[in-house]
Parts: sequence; C-alpha cells; structure tokens
Amino acid sequence: MNRFSLRHLAEYLQADWNGDPETTVSGIANLAHAEPHHLSFLNKKQFAAYLNSTRAGIVIVKDDVTAPESLNLLRVSNPYSAYATVSRLFCRRPPQPQGIHPSAFVDPTAVIAPSASIGSGCSIAEDVEIGENTEILPGAVIGAGSRLGANCIIYPNVVIYHGVMLGDRVTVHSNTVIGADGFGFARHNDEWIKIYQLGGVRIGNDVEIGASVTIDRGAIDDTVICDGVIIDDQVHIAHNCIIGRGTAIAGCTGIAGSTEIGASCTLGGLVAVSGHLKIADNVHFNGSSVVTRSISEPGIYSSGTVVQEVHTWRKNAVRFGQLEQWVERIKKLEKVVMAASDETAEKK
Amino acid sequence: MNRFSLRHLAEYLQADWNGDPETTVSGIANLAHAEPHHLSFLNKKQFAAYLNSTRAGIVIVKDDVTAPESLNLLRVSNPYSAYATVSRLFCRRPPQPQGIHPSAFVDPTAVIAPSASIGSGCSIAEDVEIGENTEILPGAVIGAGSRLGANCIIYPNVVIYHGVMLGDRVTVHSNTVIGADGFGFARHNDEWIKIYQLGGVRIGNDVEIGASVTIDRGAIDDTVICDGVIIDDQVHIAHNCIIGRGTAIAGCTGIAGSTEIGASCTLGGLVAVSGHLKIADNVHFNGSSVVTRSISEPGIYSSGTVVQEVHTWRKNAVRFGQLEQWVERIKKLEKVVMAASDETAEKK
Amino acid sequence: MNRFSLRHLAEYLQADWNGDPETTVSGIANLAHAEPHHLSFLNKKQFAAYLNSTRAGIVIVKDDVTAPESLNLLRVSNPYSAYATVSRLFCRRPPQPQGIHPSAFVDPTAVIAPSASIGSGCSIAEDVEIGENTEILPGAVIGAGSRLGANCIIYPNVVIYHGVMLGDRVTVHSNTVIGADGFGFARHNDEWIKIYQLGGVRIGNDVEIGASVTIDRGAIDDTVICDGVIIDDQVHIAHNCIIGRGTAIAGCTGIAGSTEIGASCTLGGLVAVSGHLKIADNVHFNGSSVVTRSISEPGIYSSGTVVQEVHTWRKNAVRFGQLEQWVERIKKLEKVVMAASDETAEKK
Repeated sequence: MNRFSLRHLAEYLQADWNGDPETTVSGIANLAHAEPHHLSFLNKKQFAAYLNSTRAGIVIVKDDVTAPESLNLLRVSNPYSAYATVSRLFCRRPPQPQGIHPSAFVDPTAVIAPSASIGSGCSIAEDVEIGENTEILPGAVIGAGSRLGANCIIYPNVVIYHGVMLGDRVTVHSNTVIGADGFGFARHNDEWIKIYQLGGVRIGNDVEIGASVTIDRGAIDDTVICDGVIIDDQVHIAHNCIIGRGTAIAGCTGIAGSTEIGASCTLGGLVAVSGHLKIADNVHFNGSSVVTRSISEPGIYSSGTVVQEVHTWRKNAVRFGQLEQWVERIKKLEKVVMAASDETAEKK
Repeated sequence: MNRFSLRHLAEYLQADWNGDPETTVSGIANLAHAEPHHLSFLNKKQFAAYLNSTRAGIVIVKDDVTAPESLNLLRVSNPYSAYATVSRLFCRRPPQPQGIHPSAFVDPTAVIAPSASIGSGCSIAEDVEIGENTEILPGAVIGAGSRLGANCIIYPNVVIYHGVMLGDRVTVHSNTVIGADGFGFARHNDEWIKIYQLGGVRIGNDVEIGASVTIDRGAIDDTVICDGVIIDDQVHIAHNCIIGRGTAIAGCTGIAGSTEIGASCTLGGLVAVSGHLKIADNVHFNGSSVVTRSISEPGIYSSGTVVQEVHTWRKNAVRFGQLEQWVERIKKLEKVVMAASDETAEKK
Repeated sequence: MNRFSLRHLAEYLQADWNGDPETTVSGIANLAHAEPHHLSFLNKKQFAAYLNSTRAGIVIVKDDVTAPESLNLLRVSNPYSAYATVSRLFCRRPPQPQGIHPSAFVDPTAVIAPSASIGSGCSIAEDVEIGENTEILPGAVIGAGSRLGANCIIYPNVVIYHGVMLGDRVTVHSNTVIGADGFGFARHNDEWIKIYQLGGVRIGNDVEIGASVTIDRGAIDDTVICDGVIIDDQVHIAHNCIIGRGTAIAGCTGIAGSTEIGASCTLGGLVAVSGHLKIADNVHFNGSSVVTRSISEPGIYSSGTVVQEVHTWRKNAVRFGQLEQWVERIKKLEKVVMAASDETAEKK
C-alpha cells in the first residue's frame, strides 16, 4: 500500500498547503469516518463543522475555508475535482504484467506494442493493432482488423468485433460489446431479411465505457463516440448513432439508431431516445425521460410521472387515459358558463 | 475485398438492369456519399433528386423510377429489401476456420459436425451437438446436452446453458445468455426458497439475437422463441415466455414470465411487458410502452408521456398526481352549472 | 435421471402422505400435463378440478384439500413452497468435477478449497480465496484479492473484479459483472475527471444474482448486498447502494448511486430508482415505477401510465403536456361559477 505525503500531494495538485509536509496518507475516506492515515475532502460548505471533529490525516478544502490549525490542509479552488485527481494514486487494481499470457491466442498478423499486455484466455484476431501500455484483461476478444490506441484498459470478457477503432486512454469495462450488428432488417413477404452491417465503430480518446454496454456497428457508415464521452453500465447505443464530445450517459439508457446527440449533454438513467433524432449540445435529460423528438434548444428536459401510493396512482392513471374526454368536458363547461355570464351581462 | 459486377448482382437479385454489365462495385454507400466503386439504392422517391448527382457505380431503384441514362441501374419491386439481400455479399467478417481450436475444451461426448468451427477458449460440455457450418466464436460456452443446428453463428463469450435447443441459421451476438435460471422463488417464513428451473429454452430457425440479451430457461416447461424472431441488444425474456413467429423486439425491452407474444408483432425499445399476459398477433407497441394487460386486438399501442422542458414538465407531473381530484372538481362544476342552467330554463 | 419415491419425498418435506409409498417420480409437471412419472402440485384452490383428471404420479396439496382416493398425495401447509423445496432434487445441471481444469489460469498465491472446482478457461488472480464446494464455471474471471465463500456457483463468463467479497451459497449467473467502477466523474473545465473507485462490493450469504447484472464497486466505501437478496437478469446496481436483507429486484431495474433500499422490499421489472434515496423496509414498487424521492412508509407504489391504442394515447399524452393549463382553466371556471352562484344567492 503506497503512502503519499502532504508535500507530494501538494505538488501533484499544485495546491497550497498548511501543516506538516511529512504527514502521509494511504487511503481516502469521508470526513466523518476518516482515520489519521486517510486523506479526506470538504466538498460542500454545509459540512464544514466536520472539520472540527475529523481525524483525517490530510484534508482537501476550498482556498478560503477556515479550519482548525491542527489540520493538515490542501487548499484548492475545486476540492471535488482535486479529490478526483488524487483518487488515481490510491487505486488498488494491480496492473497486468506486460507481454502476452501463454494461454492467450494472438494471430501472427496482429501487432502488439511491446509494453502492452494480453491476459490469459484472450483472443486477438488477424490484423489487430494494440498500442503502448494498453492492457487487455483475461478473456477479452478483439476481432479482425480492430485497432486500439495507447493506454487503454479492456476489462475481462469484453468483446470488440472486427473493424472497430479505439483512440488512446479508452477504458472498457467487463462484458461490454462493441461492434455487434445493428438491428437492421427489411420486411419482405412476411419475413425479415437481414441487412448486413458493413460499417464499424469509431471511439475517440479519453472515453470511458461501463460494464455490459452495447455499441452496435453501423449499417453503412460508422457508429461514432467522440472524445471524452463517458458511458455508464448497461447502456445501449444503436447503429449509426453519433455521441458528441464530453457527453455523459447514465446507466440503462437506450439510444435508437441514427440519432445524433450533441456535445456536453447528460442523459440520466433509463432514458429512452428514439431513432433518427438530433439533440443539440448542452441538452440534459433527467432519468427515465422518453425522447421522441429532436431537441434544438439547450436546457433540461423530463417526462413521465413519479411514484405514488398505488391506490392513488391507479385512479390517476385511469384519468390519464381519459384526459381528452375531460378536456372536452372542461371546454363544454366553459361554453355554458360563458354563455350564462354573457346573458347575465346583457340583462344588467 | 470482393468486387461484384452489375451482371452478377442482377442475377443474384433476379432484377432487370440498365447500363454496363461489367461495371463492378466493392462496397455500399448512400447516394450522397457514394463513389464509383459503391453500390447504392434509392429507397424513397423524395430522394430521387440524388440520382442526378450521385457518383455511385450501380444504383438499385424501383422498377418505375426515371433516372439519368448514364447510371447503371438494378430495377426491383422493393429497393430496400434488395439492398438487404445484397448486403450479405459485402460483409467483411472473416469466417473462422473449420475445426476445433487447440485451446478450446470440447468434452469427448460432444458431437461436432466436421464443417463446424470451435474458436479459441470455447468450452463445449458433454452431449452437446453442433450442426454443419456452425461457427462458435472464441470464449463461447455451451452447456451439457444443448443442441445447435446448422449454419448458426455464436459470437464470442456467448453463454448457452445446459438443455437449450437452437434451430438452423440462428445468430447469437456476444455476451448473450440463453438458459440462465428464471427468476422463480417461493416466499416462506420471510425467506426466498429457490424454485429450480427445470425447463429449457427452445429457439426455432432463422432467429437473430443481439448482444447482451438474456433468455431464461423455463421453470417446468420450456421458454420458446419461434422461427424468424429477431431480437435486438439488451432484451430480457423471462422464463416460460413464448415469442411468436416473425416477431421483432427492439433494444432494452423486458418481458416478464409466462407471457405469450403473438406472431408478427413489433415491440419498440425499452418496452416493459408484465407477466402472464397474452398478446395477439400483429400487435405493435411503440417504444417505452408499459404493457400490464393482455391485448386481443391487432393494432398500435403506446403509453407514457414525452419530454418537456423541465419546469413545464414538473407542473404537469404534479397535476398528474392530482388528476382524480381535478376530475372531481370538474364533476362538481358540471353539477352546479347544470343546476343553474336548469333554474334559468325554469325561469324563462 | 434420478427417481424419488413418495416415502422419500414425504421425509424430505416432512409432509403427511396418502397412497403407495413406493411410487416414484422423475420430473415435475403441472397437473394438466403431468404423466405418471411426474410430481405435480395444486397451488390454488380454483384449480382443484384438475385433481380429478390429472395423471400425475404424486401431487403436493394443501393439508385440507379433498382429492380422489386414487392419487398419491403429499399434504403440506404451503404447496408452492413445498414444490420450491423439492424442485432442487430434479435439477439436471451436471455439477462440474472438483479441482482445477488444466486450461484455467490460477495465480499461485490464490487459495482454492480442495472441494472447489475451477472450469476451463477461468482466470483466478493473486490472493483470491475460493471456499469449499464452490464451482467456478468456464470462462469466469476473479480479480485480485476477492474472496468467495462456500457452496457458491459462479456461472460461465461472470467477471468479479478485485476486492469483492461473497458470502456462502451465492449464485451468480452468466455474464454478470461485480465490482466494475462506479460512474463517478468530476466535471472541471469542460472535462470529466475520473474518480477512481476505491471501495469494493460486499455480498452476503444466500444471495442469487441473475444473468447480465452489473453491481458496481463503491467510490470510497463498499457497495453492499445483504443476506438473502435475490436479483433478476439485467439489473444495474450503482456504486455505494445498500440493498437490505431479503429484498427482491426484478429484471432490467436500475438503482442509481448511494441509494439505500430496505429489507424485504420488492422492485418490479424496469423500475428506475434515483440516487441518494432511502427506501424503508417492506416497500413494493410495481414494474416501471420511477422513484425520485425517498419513501419512509411501507406500502405499494406505482407510477406511469398503461398502454392504450395509439390514437387515443396520443391525444391524452398531448393533454398531459397541458395539464397545468387545464387546471388553470378549471380554477377560473370555479371562480366564475362561484361568483355567479353567490350573486344568485344574494338575489334570492
């Protein structure tokens, strides 16, 4: 377990500091639970009272926070992103040794960088290229002609089909599938004729993809995930989608074919986006939104209803199914009341 | 890369043609982006203007379309299904060599057709049968006694449990699981007692199953997927469902246990179907539908609401939760207004 | 195929019986389809008429049921849970032989119980501990330092990351991923900074987890699944969730980060639960519920609307988007009508 000194962390974060520069920490904990060997952080001012009681060895705080003199502090402009930045130091996943595990199958035409590592039971097909320091963990399968950049991590049992391109620093979590066939079929004489999916998938740099995600290959052109996109577990991205730079997609969301999502968007969990739509930059969909039309204005969007006790809900759900009728009754009432009111006015 | 001549494609599609029969193409592109080595197609008449500017080497058009004389044409009754039919020729996935990869484990009692192929790291259990020309790609696992027909493709890391039957020409994309236990438990004395799932899964011919799909084995009888069904990624089909012939199920849809879906239905993405329902043939559920009752009439069905700007939505969602109360207020208004109107009538 | 006698089953279930104690059965079927070699059960009194026609060799019934004398009966207080209990005897999955398959990779520092079994192509990392009688089926991957108790079944191609703890009698179905990184990123200068996920996952005893489930590791503290929890396929549980004892989660449900679900809850299929919520014990969410607030009262909850024919639905969905306006119109009507009625009252 590595230990890091206040002096080292201050340099790493380019942060001001107070206290004993030789104090070291070996892990991260929140203020309430931290022990002296923990680094902690104060993200929101409403929790500042914890500074008086915390036992944390070092605390990251905002520049202007007042804290007890006894604390070892790192002072930064944004404590939460500073926490994110240093969290990397405390990661305990042991890296896989460089080189090719003897139980992996690597086609002789594949080009594996010397510093890359291929885990046990992996299968690397013909003409694959794997960049420097990229780790392919056990059981992952890379299809013919696919290319992975440098410093990627491909977790166990991921499947990357043929003709898929990944940039540098792409992380793909376990059991994700990139490049399976898009769901393309033509209906003819009561049968589905498969449309062979001839495009690929292109994924930019600095992309993180969660576990059990599916990103399908394009029908003719490629499916495209731009730089800096982050994708949570169980997301489905259909063929020929384009996901703009820096967009974040939360768990279980599904995006149908040929939809283009702009840059810096966020999609909450379990959002459903129809196909062939165009969503502008900086659009934010709350969880469980159902998106059936293109959105050209940045903003926050929602749909649906929220839980109620079931008896109350049931009545309301029935009324939803009659809304048009009730609107008609309101309109009729308005006519009657207005006519009566006109009559009254006339009489006066 | 294979090239196909106009003459060859015309024979393949049994289509009429115009132009130079020796013109060849090596890929498919849409009319706007096509180069001379591309085949393209005109699917919708509103795009007919592209025929004047396209550089495509060959274009598939409807029989009666007027097109510049300079174009090489394939004339068919349904250009989209003709495109689907020829797309197969341009598929670039290299087939896996026949035979059993030395790193695969195949139980000595398994019967593998000579023309079948078993990829690296596969595991084939006792009494499995694999038909002619079926490809089992790397890392796939087939459980005891399961039988796969001819010309199937099982993509990497698919898991087929014991006692699962697949017909001919079944494609299963990566990381899909067929035959895991259905979610069956009896509640007793505050504990869940597992109901062992003793049925299997039967899948017909010409079925395509996407990536990361789960189709559970039956509790007592089998779960059944009929011929010609197509299933997109991330779909969940629970134990003892029956999915009728030629039905299409889009991504992320979940179907609860013992529900029977008719033939030629379509289920959009993220549809939720409750258990123990019966859905007639030719029923179409739009995406995100919530289906909690059986449907006996063919037709198109929907539920839910669609995205709005969040402030507007929030007000409406609150009102949804009060619908029953507002309906009561409308009814009361109607009574008052009607009474008043009766009174007015009397006075006259 | 094993056969079990009425006498044996009566002892196994500690049940009263009638009939020939030497009658044997080798499988389970429902009353309508059972043959003489089948065990069957009568779960609901409305199906009691089947007792007169069933050909089942043995039938489990409630203590007080009247049945033809010719039937061999097992009389119990709860036939459904008795069926669940005996179902285990009829399970036909062949257990994997003890020991380590030669094609598996097991790090020399891993401690594997002698009665455990490691299937072909598995990868077991450093410092892993595997308990007695635990089966790790082909292609599963267990990360560094993870510990599995006794009598677990880990189905093919499951991935358990580093630092994950499983109790005894835990079943994990295929392609499930436990311990992938939680979706934690800090937004800074238009970029996402990854928050390394330093916590693990702790799973209690007697937990069953379906296929293609994702349970993410915690950011700082662990994600926790308590004893006796059952989880269906395609469920997503985000980082730092706590799922209380005996709670059941149906397919395709997603639970966002840091949410705590109480004990003995049930979540229907495709339920969406927001992050940082607290749900009390004995709360039941119907399928497709959208849960965006904490729930402190036990009970049954629902949200959403149910399918309608699309034309009717479309009108109602439009009206949902105008609900606030219609409510305003109702209020205005009420004012006008009330004023008029006051005026009428004054005149009288």
